[in-house]
Amino acid sequence: MNSSHPLHLLLNPSSIAIVGANNNPMKMGTMHALSILKDGFAGKLYPVHPKEKTVLGMEAFTSVESLPAAPDLAILVVPSSEIIKLVEEFGKKGTRRVIIITAGFRETGSAGRAEEERLQSVAARYGIRFLGPNCMGIINTDISLNTTVVTLNMKDGRLGMVSQSGTYVSQTLPYLVKHGIRFSKAISVGNSTDISLIDALEYLGDDESTKAISLYIEGLSEPKRFLEVARSIVSRKPIVAQYVGGSKAGARAGLSHTGALAAPDHLYDGLFKQAGVIRVDSVEDLFGHGWMLATQPRLKGKRVAVLTNSGGPGSSMAHTCEQNGFEVVEFSESLKKKIEPLVPPHAPCGNPVDITFSMDVEVLSKKIPEIVMQSGEVDAVVLHGTMRSGFIKIIYPHLVDMLNGTPLETILDMLKIDFEKSASLPHIYGIPMAISSFFDFEDDFTAAYHSHDVPVYDSPEKAARALSALLKYHTILQRLKDAPDESPLQKNDEAERILHDAKRAGQRVLDEYQSKRLLAAYGLPVSKEMLIQNESELAEAVAALGFPVVLKACSSDIPHKTGKGLIYLRLNSMDECREAFKNIRKSAESDVPVLVSAMARGEREFMAGFLRHELFGEVVSFGLGGIFAETIGDTTFRLAPLSVNDAKHMMCDIRHAGLLGEVRGLPAVDEASLMHIIRSLGAIGMHHHAVREIDINPVLVEGSRPVIVDALVVLN
Amino acid sequence: MNSSHPLHLLLNPSSIAIVGANNNPMKMGTMHALSILKDGFAGKLYPVHPKEKTVLGMEAFTSVESLPAAPDLAILVVPSSEIIKLVEEFGKKGTRRVIIITAGFRETGSAGRAEEERLQSVAARYGIRFLGPNCMGIINTDISLNTTVVTLNMKDGRLGMVSQSGTYVSQTLPYLVKHGIRFSKAISVGNSTDISLIDALEYLGDDESTKAISLYIEGLSEPKRFLEVARSIVSRKPIVAQYVGGSKAGARAGLSHTGALAAPDHLYDGLFKQAGVIRVDSVEDLFGHGWMLATQPRLKGKRVAVLTNSGGPGSSMAHTCEQNGFEVVEFSESLKKKIEPLVPPHAPCGNPVDITFSMDVEVLSKKIPEIVMQSGEVDAVVLHGTMRSGFIKIIYPHLVDMLNGTPLETILDMLKIDFEKSASLPHIYGIPMAISSFFDFEDDFTAAYHSHDVPVYDSPEKAARALSALLKYHTILQRLKDAPDESPLQKNDEAERILHDAKRAGQRVLDEYQSKRLLAAYGLPVSKEMLIQNESELAEAVAALGFPVVLKACSSDIPHKTGKGLIYLRLNSMDECREAFKNIRKSAESDVPVLVSAMARGEREFMAGFLRHELFGEVVSFGLGGIFAETIGDTTFRLAPLSVNDAKHMMCDIRHAGLLGEVRGLPAVDEASLMHIIRSLGAIGMHHHAVREIDINPVLVEGSRPVIVDALVVLN
Repeated sequence: MNSSHPLHLLLNPSSIAIVGANNNPMKMGTMHALSILKDGFAGKLYPVHPKEKTVLGMEAFTSVESLPAAPDLAILVVPSSEIIKLVEEFGKKGTRRVIIITAGFRETGSAGRAEEERLQSVAARYGIRFLGPNCMGIINTDISLNTTVVTLNMKDGRLGMVSQSGTYVSQTLPYLVKHGIRFSKAISVGNSTDISLIDALEYLGDDESTKAISLYIEGLSEPKRFLEVARSIVSRKPIVAQYVGGSKAGARAGLSHTGALAAPDHLYDGLFKQAGVIRVDSVEDLFGHGWMLATQPRLKGKRVAVLTNSGGPGSSMAHTCEQNGFEVVEFSESLKKKIEPLVPPHAPCGNPVDITFSMDVEVLSKKIPEIVMQSGEVDAVVLHGTMRSGFIKIIYPHLVDMLNGTPLETILDMLKIDFEKSASLPHIYGIPMAISSFFDFEDDFTAAYHSHDVPVYDSPEKAARALSALLKYHTILQRLKDAPDESPLQKNDEAERILHDAKRAGQRVLDEYQSKRLLAAYGLPVSKEMLIQNESELAEAVAALGFPVVLKACSSDIPHKTGKGLIYLRLNSMDECREAFKNIRKSAESDVPVLVSAMARGEREFMAGFLRHELFGEVVSFGLGGIFAETIGDTTFRLAPLSVNDAKHMMCDIRHAGLLGEVRGLPAVDEASLMHIIRSLGAIGMHHHAVREIDINPVLVEGSRPVIVDALVVLN
Repeated sequence: MNSSHPLHLLLNPSSIAIVGANNNPMKMGTMHALSILKDGFAGKLYPVHPKEKTVLGMEAFTSVESLPAAPDLAILVVPSSEIIKLVEEFGKKGTRRVIIITAGFRETGSAGRAEEERLQSVAARYGIRFLGPNCMGIINTDISLNTTVVTLNMKDGRLGMVSQSGTYVSQTLPYLVKHGIRFSKAISVGNSTDISLIDALEYLGDDESTKAISLYIEGLSEPKRFLEVARSIVSRKPIVAQYVGGSKAGARAGLSHTGALAAPDHLYDGLFKQAGVIRVDSVEDLFGHGWMLATQPRLKGKRVAVLTNSGGPGSSMAHTCEQNGFEVVEFSESLKKKIEPLVPPHAPCGNPVDITFSMDVEVLSKKIPEIVMQSGEVDAVVLHGTMRSGFIKIIYPHLVDMLNGTPLETILDMLKIDFEKSASLPHIYGIPMAISSFFDFEDDFTAAYHSHDVPVYDSPEKAARALSALLKYHTILQRLKDAPDESPLQKNDEAERILHDAKRAGQRVLDEYQSKRLLAAYGLPVSKEMLIQNESELAEAVAALGFPVVLKACSSDIPHKTGKGLIYLRLNSMDECREAFKNIRKSAESDVPVLVSAMARGEREFMAGFLRHELFGEVVSFGLGGIFAETIGDTTFRLAPLSVNDAKHMMCDIRHAGLLGEVRGLPAVDEASLMHIIRSLGAIGMHHHAVREIDINPVLVEGSRPVIVDALVVLN
């Protein structure tokens, strides 16, 4: 726990003032005050109201000044025009933390943006750190503090939530209760003007009650800081994130919601991968997968047991587990022998285990899972079909006559079950378990799992998919563990000179020859080539390089050469070369220098690049090259600087990663060399501010060796 | 409605006998009987029991023979050893429809399989058509008939369900009620021994109460018939399917569950695409998307309006809609002007429309959706945030003191809302709507939508994704509408001769030359080439073809030539050719004939093929070729014979379909020619039973023209 973090006091105040609450129960401010008052907060609450003598039965104060002492936290739910004045008053009083619920700032346009900047400078003057504006407040179940508008019915939470949407920490509370999910802390950051989503993430990273963190993101203002903070947390606890700003419509919606600046989806995707953040694409998974990660023991391998009382859900769970990277291992004969006596004759017991329509729920809920967990043959369990009261309740209307009116409760009491043991199994054996049940908490099995922090999902596929979040985290931790020691790439003076000369010559881009010399200065493998000014130099160049060769016009005035008669490939004789030289000069209509290159040959083409993004800063890309680059777009992105591990991960990350291995008699690609290309692009971008963009396309693989065949460096 | 269909009487009996029910309420047979008795079936029910005088208050009959008349339907819930005898007795009595709930047949292994075959022949002897064994019975809400073990709480259903899992028509009933989903008919087919899943699909295709059909599939025994039946239904009503047998674990689970023979996932995927069946990958979507399709007006275009009271869900819905092919169109100025007065100042009203935390639910639930539907600017609406009692209930505990103890009901009565109108909008304007709400039917908005057949989903993304099922169906119907007239491809005699000769020569495969001659006989474009027996013929062949050429060993004894020194590419001189010829003879260690081909050049490679699958029969494949074929596997499958439309759909269906268009200065591929290749492969397989398999890899695209560069025909 980091008590010096600005959020610490904000989440753990001993006194709170609220402005905007009155005695009208349908007013927002009143609802916020009621949550603080009624949900168990043990500290002091001071309503500030210009006219009312009492608010919600408490003494009200006519002004900030008249408060008996400076409250630790002020909550403002007043029209936006009054916010700055109030912040100033609280500043004078000595309050240093504020939550601004009120909307109407940056998200409304330029006037709002100016007002938000003024707010920021006023707060800074008093050393005030604030959450919002345009947020829904916070929840801290450690001290039963709820400043949202919706009743809090949860204690001892384990999932930390940071959200750019207030709804996901307020309107969703009943939904979460129904799903057994409990927040440790939840923080609605709104416009993130002062305390940002990243600050909140940082705080939860150190918060002991928080076992996993879920993030709802519409746009990050500091992606690089996000990367640093998230990366430092992930080795200790998992982070799940949803990002919705990447589409045209999502970006438009986010901008008008919290003023968030969106960026293309692929940049966020790369950022999450680089940080080791697990990405989800729905709020259901944001909560559900977060809860799985917050409650279950860590996965040690990928072998899963599928237990069911019904074939359909069993088949679906097995199928979904396998699709998500699990192995539904067949049980050993000795394990099968232990299960056989517990299930009806002919019932499958080799994994999946299907007890079929058996009424003995203890077999399914306790005996079989325990045997399986004890066996050492699996790393996780997914279970469908445990039910008692939920099922009895729905068949009871059919049975009540036959049972001579015996009350439902009596019948339920007759069916005693050791829920305690069943629901404790994952924690006893350190083996994660996911439950699939079509019954809500109206069923006492579901209720028992909820109270023992075993996640329950309302479909077989959902349970299996949620379990796969553990596998994703396992893979991320594995990657972190395997990270080699490494030293950063040093700045190269020759490269700086090339750039300096080009800038002085007024160039907007480096020509192909200069671009490749720049890359070669960093040790990157470029095609063997010579730049010639006259036809008379041609023979010497060709002699040095050997047939076949390529001739290209080389000028910073012609960055794109394709389709203009400026490139001649596969030249096999001096005659062809001379003709090509003449044609290039003719097409260029100038005495353009000509680049003579050894013709690289290979079937595999990749591309790599560097760009400066207004929000993300230095970004490196790697992907499939050649003709495919345009039609399928298999490219992945990371922020610079890149570790060796980052570069390696990029290579595995493209869908066509298989092309890097041995394929169709071709040798595996020299990974170290390719990684060096990828890492160096980041280093070049970090070291040389004159570089705006680098495009390498293709990197052709000759045998196993990557060769940069074409490159373009764009200058700032 | 097809009253001659075997399922008609089974689903609409006027009298039912049940064997296996007694007076023990926890016995399966009793539970089945109770459902028939209590859920509203108006026909006669006869319990058959050897000892009991009465069962569930009804007179019991000691034997089948003693029944007063032959019941229309018999339901058997007795040990498997008694089934055949009972079927025989009912046969003698005159009953012609039976449901066999009992398990323990084919799914248990070879003895069970033999028993199942005997059952089949006994039933056939009496003209009995039966459902099961190993099933859960049927539901027909038209006549309130429920033969499952779970209470039925639904009427006037619209969704037809056929399932190889009994759970999905029984244990899920309370789940369905909670989600407002109602079956018209539900049929658990179990082992599909006599009446199959396809029969049931066929029946529901003609059933007037059924507006959409959901299928849970573990394996189909007659994929071709499925294709025919499904295709004939899809133009009238949509079909949604889940298939889980495609993974190793899924196949194992399915086999032991209903004895279903699984096939690879990609074959089912192709089958569903060819049939126009919408595939889903969870039972939640099977129900949820089915319900969307069963209730909402047909989509006319892809413009969607996103309406919300909260930015987070709004952004997510917009993002998810766009990802699924919708356009979240920006509203016209005039439409925005109509919405503006209804929402708070600065609230976004250009789509998404976000009324923010406004308490005026009628604005969100009625006024804005109606204005938007009237505008003509959208084809669908997705809406989040309508809520009344659900929300009031959760904040009520906070408010009750302030309200002087006013009961919740009184408060709800004060907030009158025109639910009727809100929930009728999609049907009034013929524009589909999906609702996202974190509130269950405890909220009266959710309840109102349910009762008006407007689907409600418990997350924004789920609502948006369910809506996309309508878009998929729209696309399928569009494709059906665009299907051109066409004639089947005729059998070719020359091809038959080639095969006949090869068989007579004892060949197991056609050599490359023969293979290409076979394909050429059907008008397929193969590389120009000549087969030579001696080096002396080389010069003439090369002269006829022109440089560069390719030399390959050509023998049915060497079907795979790569990497063995048997292929020489890009030969540019007679010297190279002669050397290649000698090398081939040396590598082959025989006087193998040599194929001299014109060297085709092109950057785009595809593959196509034909195979006979033990279950699917004649299957045609098309995909990316060359080096990529092995590493990414971008191939799609269809059953032969193929229509022009099928072939066209295959071409669009691969992920790399973009390569077929204009790309990087290359012209678009000649689609007609490629389609002809694909269709012909199916025709060859259908016409020539000697052909077991055809592999064409690659089809190289030279300019725009596809050329078959290598081909192998495997014989039966």
